[in-house]
Amino acid sequence: MDEITFAVLGTGGIGRRALEVSQHKDALTPVAACDRHGVAVDFDGLDVDELLAATEGNIDSEVATDGGTGAATAESGVKQHGEDRGVVASSQARPSEDAIQEIIDRGDRIDAVLLALPNYEHDFIPRTADRFVEGGYSGVMIDVLKRSRVIGMLDERSDAFEDAGVTFICGAGATPGLLTGAAALAAQSFVEVTDVDIWWGVGLKSGYEDNRGTVREDIAHLPEYDIETARGLSESEIEAIIDDHDGVIEFEDMEHADDVLLERAGVCDADDVTVGGVLDVRNDEKPTTTTVRVTGRTFDGETATNTFQLGDETSMEANVNGPALGYLKAGVRRNRAGEYGVFGPADLLPGF
Amino acid sequence: MDEITFAVLGTGGIGRRALEVSQHKDALTPVAACDRHGVAVDFDGLDVDELLAATEGNIDSEVATDGGTGAATAESGVKQHGEDRGVVASSQARPSEDAIQEIIDRGDRIDAVLLALPNYEHDFIPRTADRFVEGGYSGVMIDVLKRSRVIGMLDERSDAFEDAGVTFICGAGATPGLLTGAAALAAQSFVEVTDVDIWWGVGLKSGYEDNRGTVREDIAHLPEYDIETARGLSESEIEAIIDDHDGVIEFEDMEHADDVLLERAGVCDADDVTVGGVLDVRNDEKPTTTTVRVTGRTFDGETATNTFQLGDETSMEANVNGPALGYLKAGVRRNRAGEYGVFGPADLLPGF
Repeated sequence: MDEITFAVLGTGGIGRRALEVSQHKDALTPVAACDRHGVAVDFDGLDVDELLAATEGNIDSEVATDGGTGAATAESGVKQHGEDRGVVASSQARPSEDAIQEIIDRGDRIDAVLLALPNYEHDFIPRTADRFVEGGYSGVMIDVLKRSRVIGMLDERSDAFEDAGVTFICGAGATPGLLTGAAALAAQSFVEVTDVDIWWGVGLKSGYEDNRGTVREDIAHLPEYDIETARGLSESEIEAIIDDHDGVIEFEDMEHADDVLLERAGVCDADDVTVGGVLDVRNDEKPTTTTVRVTGRTFDGETATNTFQLGDETSMEANVNGPALGYLKAGVRRNRAGEYGVFGPADLLPGF
Repeated sequence: MDEITFAVLGTGGIGRRALEVSQHKDALTPVAACDRHGVAVDFDGLDVDELLAATEGNIDSEVATDGGTGAATAESGVKQHGEDRGVVASSQARPSEDAIQEIIDRGDRIDAVLLALPNYEHDFIPRTADRFVEGGYSGVMIDVLKRSRVIGMLDERSDAFEDAGVTFICGAGATPGLLTGAAALAAQSFVEVTDVDIWWGVGLKSGYEDNRGTVREDIAHLPEYDIETARGLSESEIEAIIDDHDGVIEFEDMEHADDVLLERAGVCDADDVTVGGVLDVRNDEKPTTTTVRVTGRTFDGETATNTFQLGDETSMEANVNGPALGYLKAGVRRNRAGEYGVFGPADLLPGF
């Protein structure tokens, strides 16, 4: 495939890891990265090592030396709270009053935009997409969101995306994303899928401190919280919740977009999809093996279960960012072929 | 997706099952089927039930009543050896001196052609593709071949396919096909894949009699045989080989196109792919669980193995034909978007 230029909106855990993983991928050139406070743009390709070291390096090492609990360093990370907070800590970046607009203004040279913004309000990503459309953008936009209801908001914009020439890929991280794709592929043995059971285990290798957004997003899935109340939690309140659970939080029957994404791809009804998992904030090791089980009926009348399991040694970061960039490349291919609108990960796999 | 019309070349085990499975799929209309002796064409859609019953029904029941060994009925099946041999036994079909040409001549109304011809000589499918190109065909062609070297022959025709507007999908059955796709997806956790180990188990639910082509193709993978010598074997010689192995034939380090298909998709080197498996011709149950193991290195330096397993109750027929039709639909989508040339299953998944 020809060279692909991409921008990352958000330089938290996911955005930074996406930049890092992209260095291992063929034909991907990161040309812009921004957060709420600044923007870095270089069409010859960002110096990812410098950007990561400047915005993340010292926090990584602090977590490593205190055993990964993150608690001791909660308010001390330079990237979130220092004077040069966020991406501006990089020598390639500069402060901006409206960093996203600066990316939009350069959209004609950017093939794809990865929205790495897990913990904003529900309509933040749809509204950001609106801004890109209004700004004349006509490439790929991709998110790694987990929430079912956001897909509906994006679907409402489907005509606008088609008119603009935007190919929007939603839910393209680990779950949904890699695991939704695995479920769609596993479903090919069957003429009717009766159950998809997704069970994930995440051990936060790099600790809470380096995964604030992700942990906050996960807490929003607990029965007592939603995305708005979770967003309102202070750092110390989040740590208190983590303490209450001894660092290990189990989720059952989550609102997780795998269901609507599998339904829209024609794999099964959303009601047939169950998602749960276990998050261990304090240990590298996964507390349970991430497993997708797809049960269905074959054309010759048998009932069986196909299974996909991730190796326990693969980190959440590896399973989010490899697939996200894979789907990004698939999206660019679709976009260049003139296919616009909203796509889930399973829509990018062979059809059913 | 809009309605897709397709033709099946070959009405042996795979061709007939593809017709049957297509009845469970949305938006797929079988409009033509042929074998060496005849052709059935109906652009309103073939009556699949009639065609299957006429060409296969009595053989199925004979196998069922003799316990599935097939040996007792080897020379007595109506479809292969009766007066109305093959597809001509169907009231929808008529004899033809050149059935394939009759399909080619109607190619402008056929979106995709499934080449369900496992046991011909190596260059049969490439040469058949040549005939379609020469006849002005500009749709999808798809095979379920297993042999690495055929991919090379197809690649040599890549420019001709592009000029003609043909999208050729090769190796799109169970393995390669479903399992190659699973390996490509499982690889997304890694920045470097070091090993892909594909191990399949097949129990021939419908016995040797209904799977002549597939069994012959598999025997060609034994060290003592190749595709030409296997093709020259008589029915009784094949049965003698099966008897020698007590009905259970194990294959190690097969020439199997998964290797070249994964390399061309950028997943790993062909040398890193190992394929083997166990075929039990006499039992419904699989002799071993079909498993794909993908081992790699993550961006953060871990080594891990992701695993995909098919439920033992899924038949070879279910795992070949569901994926084949899924890839066929993916191919039509690519074709309609103007993407021509040669594609492997993994090329139709998100890129790396």
